Amino acid sequence: MSTIPTATISRLVTYLRILEQLESQGIKRTSSEHLAEEAQVSAFQVRKDLAYFGRFGTRGAGYTVPTLRRELRRILGLTRSWNVAIIGMGRLGQAIANYPNFDSYDFILKGLFDTDPEKIGQSISGLEVFHPEQLPRLVKEKGIDIGFITVSPEAAQIAADALVQAGIRGILNFAPAVINVPKEIHVEPVDFLAGLKRLSFYIQNPQLKEELA
Amino acid sequence: MSTIPTATISRLVTYLRILEQLESQGIKRTSSEHLAEEAQVSAFQVRKDLAYFGRFGTRGAGYTVPTLRRELRRILGLTRSWNVAIIGMGRLGQAIANYPNFDSYDFILKGLFDTDPEKIGQSISGLEVFHPEQLPRLVKEKGIDIGFITVSPEAAQIAADALVQAGIRGILNFAPAVINVPKEIHVEPVDFLAGLKRLSFYIQNPQLKEELA
Repeated sequence: MSTIPTATISRLVTYLRILEQLESQGIKRTSSEHLAEEAQVSAFQVRKDLAYFGRFGTRGAGYTVPTLRRELRRILGLTRSWNVAIIGMGRLGQAIANYPNFDSYDFILKGLFDTDPEKIGQSISGLEVFHPEQLPRLVKEKGIDIGFITVSPEAAQIAADALVQAGIRGILNFAPAVINVPKEIHVEPVDFLAGLKRLSFYIQNPQLKEELA
Repeated sequence: MSTIPTATISRLVTYLRILEQLESQGIKRTSSEHLAEEAQVSAFQVRKDLAYFGRFGTRGAGYTVPTLRRELRRILGLTRSWNVAIIGMGRLGQAIANYPNFDSYDFILKGLFDTDPEKIGQSISGLEVFHPEQLPRLVKEKGIDIGFITVSPEAAQIAADALVQAGIRGILNFAPAVINVPKEIHVEPVDFLAGLKRLSFYIQNPQLKEELA
């Protein structure tokens, strides 16, 4: 279990989403072929990804949807809840704070931060906005695990440094900037411009088949 | 060039972002080692990713920043501009419509759509909001290439069908739902909950080293 490709973790998240959809439709059994088709990968890839974590299906009979869903949630650490802070309460930060179903995913919003004096003290989605200098105190008091960076690219590194210093364990970075953090902190970039650039590549190269493995 | 891993395309986008940062700092030369460090991959991976598209560096001398940046922009199809429509003008759609620097990346906002009668006719970021039934006409008139889906998960497939039928070529899907489209249409999911779930995995498994290749 020492070298699991990051792409495998991404795909597990996709498989989980497909399983949740199947379960909501009352479907009890599925196959690597079906998961593969929905996730746009090969069935071999599905089996290989799952094999990193154990044996889940029955040869010929496929997978039990609720069981595999529960196992994937356990693997992904989604059997506990995570406390989240958002740094940067511009439109994007506000959109995320108000994201529907946010809490239903066991990510619980615990702190909102902005340097703008006009925003500090305001209430957004039922939470008061604080200055980032309150981060160390609030991260400790509220047990905040994860920070979202929704500031401008120029302020992203400062926000990251403040989060790391306050003791958070992971960062979801929405700012289109590479941030540097100690290697024990995991950063997930959420850069929709990056997605747009990949899209641009595939539109330009329609003949190009993506490798499935 | 028939089977380029999707992960390579993602990394090219990251390398481009690093090169843009270097160029803005006035730095003229770089190396696969530096790109690797910033992108948190191995130098071997950087060289392998670039090798799919030709020879760019000089052994021992590394890369010229502006040249490699220009080449990556060409490979990614970023030497032309792309016209974008947003379907769903809730907070997220509005945050994106007002995203700073959006236009500077050569993605040009050309249409905003929502089914809510209170939103239709409103002006957001200088554009009028239309009902999605106007999609076929406006996609043709304005030459819209790409659709952003920022509706609820339940409405995502309906939005995707409408975009495909109207003739767009790629979709950036912000809704946390798997959408089905004909295989000539490329979909890029931008799911921040997916990023959160990957983050949860890595926080739970701090001993786990990610595979770099």
